[in-house]
Amino acid sequence: MARVYNFGAGPCTLPLEVLEEAQREFLDYRGIGMSIMECSHRGKAYQAVHDEAMNNLRQLLHLPQDYALMLLPGGASMQFAMVPLNLASADATADYTLTGSWAAKAAKEAAKICRVHAAADTSLAQPARMPEPEDIRSSGNAAYLHLTSNETIDGTQWKDFPNADIPVVADMSSDILSRPLDISRFDLIYAGAQKNLGPAGVALVAVRRELAERAPKSLPSMLRYQNHIDNDSMLNTPPSFPVYMLMLVTRWILKTGLENIWRQNRDKSRLLYQEIDRDNFYRGTAHAQYRSEMNVTFRLPSEALEKQFVTEAETQGLHALKGHRSVGGIRASIYNAFPLEGVKKLCLFMSEFRNRNAAESMPG
Amino acid sequence: MARVYNFGAGPCTLPLEVLEEAQREFLDYRGIGMSIMECSHRGKAYQAVHDEAMNNLRQLLHLPQDYALMLLPGGASMQFAMVPLNLASADATADYTLTGSWAAKAAKEAAKICRVHAAADTSLAQPARMPEPEDIRSSGNAAYLHLTSNETIDGTQWKDFPNADIPVVADMSSDILSRPLDISRFDLIYAGAQKNLGPAGVALVAVRRELAERAPKSLPSMLRYQNHIDNDSMLNTPPSFPVYMLMLVTRWILKTGLENIWRQNRDKSRLLYQEIDRDNFYRGTAHAQYRSEMNVTFRLPSEALEKQFVTEAETQGLHALKGHRSVGGIRASIYNAFPLEGVKKLCLFMSEFRNRNAAESMPG
Repeated sequence: MARVYNFGAGPCTLPLEVLEEAQREFLDYRGIGMSIMECSHRGKAYQAVHDEAMNNLRQLLHLPQDYALMLLPGGASMQFAMVPLNLASADATADYTLTGSWAAKAAKEAAKICRVHAAADTSLAQPARMPEPEDIRSSGNAAYLHLTSNETIDGTQWKDFPNADIPVVADMSSDILSRPLDISRFDLIYAGAQKNLGPAGVALVAVRRELAERAPKSLPSMLRYQNHIDNDSMLNTPPSFPVYMLMLVTRWILKTGLENIWRQNRDKSRLLYQEIDRDNFYRGTAHAQYRSEMNVTFRLPSEALEKQFVTEAETQGLHALKGHRSVGGIRASIYNAFPLEGVKKLCLFMSEFRNRNAAESMPG
Repeated sequence: MARVYNFGAGPCTLPLEVLEEAQREFLDYRGIGMSIMECSHRGKAYQAVHDEAMNNLRQLLHLPQDYALMLLPGGASMQFAMVPLNLASADATADYTLTGSWAAKAAKEAAKICRVHAAADTSLAQPARMPEPEDIRSSGNAAYLHLTSNETIDGTQWKDFPNADIPVVADMSSDILSRPLDISRFDLIYAGAQKNLGPAGVALVAVRRELAERAPKSLPSMLRYQNHIDNDSMLNTPPSFPVYMLMLVTRWILKTGLENIWRQNRDKSRLLYQEIDRDNFYRGTAHAQYRSEMNVTFRLPSEALEKQFVTEAETQGLHALKGHRSVGGIRASIYNAFPLEGVKKLCLFMSEFRNRNAAESMPG
């Protein structure tokens, strides 16, 4: 099989050895005579999968016992609503840091449920950047402060996190478990699985227990964290195959080691940023200090060259490099499972593409 | 591989040829060099999967253009809340037919959102039964009438559906596409995929368009049908692998023919009910007129014999025959993909088990 290098922003590349294992046991899960996706979620085989997924995540996040962990359907988009529904009353204010497209989506959704205060706004900064801790202006008595740890479209990433005397909530969808995390800095984190944790269809939520307990009982059952906590994320039939894949991916992260994963992620992104910074042909769109280790975004001298770049890259097995339609340019998403070899191949292609096109595109 | 006969109530048996196809292309979907679960949901490969899933369902349901179709996360349990949130205001009344465990769950959830009127209640009937059309007492001006087409725990199934001059809503999770459906009798139907349509992680909703349009814009985006309709069920990253499996399963239903599927379902359930009715050793729990073609529920002369029955069946590759913990007894779930051979094997086992145990258990 000719496996392409998939730079897609998610759903995205999964570890090949994980895919191979899932394929091997696809029809007959460990000799039980059926696929894991045919198993009852109340049976022993699936319960063991679920327990290992939860335990792997707890271990990787160094989650203390006063944090509850959930695996929920609906992706991060559902969390955009569940966070304010559970943590803020209608007349409460929530502070949001507006740092790009995804933070804006989270804030917009919260504004349907409670009052929203823009505690910081770097969304128009050029080059794109994240707020410094001192940029954050609290509304005073907010229910929580929300941030988006990595902006996939803008190619930016928080390098340090703000300290606040209110609960801190983070959407970590696009960099969860790409680097070690000090969970004590957060009161709630959430993440869709489809970048670093597995396929689409399941999201992770970790929340300080005393915070989840406060949510009103009048909420629809499926939207109330405490109900999912009380039922160990089996309030209803879970998305069992995505959870199974997440279990295999987190097992792979544990085996590889999170520190090693992080070193590889830094190596991969550094190679690309070095190639971008070699001269003025490529131009990174994020401020160097806030450059994402997950989504490397850059421009070429013209949109015509960007189009040509994407098309030619595709013929060399470098897939899905087109930037998000809202911003244009090039985006190379290099999540945990993206191989170093693919980054090296892209760097070579970038160098060769520059050599072929720089002279004619540069003002002489 | 020794494939067992899986009588589980869901997640459950999927068509073997579907599993085999998914396994073959698991690492390399039709030569594109990656798994379908690694594909962007905005790319051509996944879009084609999504479109075929939607088209297959439209075709199988004979869905007119004035009905919108959605594939949503969260299962039927999320629909228990989404239906009243979209169709009823807080001061409106919704009529619910209380026919068993699942109808009760739907009604309980609705009661958090609007007023609920019990339009019929057969939940305590012994043997279990569904209401006759004339049993239904409307509250007068209800926003809709809700029914559960098949009760998986109670082993009952509506054979004809009520006519009403208000919108009719049905939870069809456990018998969707097990028999031809006259969709014009309904204004909204919903179903979790994990019985007849695929693995867990995705639910189907079909709704008369003018009904969905009325929902308040103040609802959280992910909970408002119209938002999903406007975005062709890609408001956010969909649960792509479960949708892909649903696409393969619905293709298999189309190839087999829904009339043939229904004939097989009738044949399978008839064989089991005949075996149950042969004498008094086994006792069906549902009134003969309302017996489910999907979940065949019965008792043995004692709980000790029931336990022995389940254990011995398991050793013969007849898996997951234990009734739901809330009612006990035996349950054989025989959804679309459950093979006739498995039913025949169970009938043989039942006959043999009766022969071995009837004499000592019956009052002499």
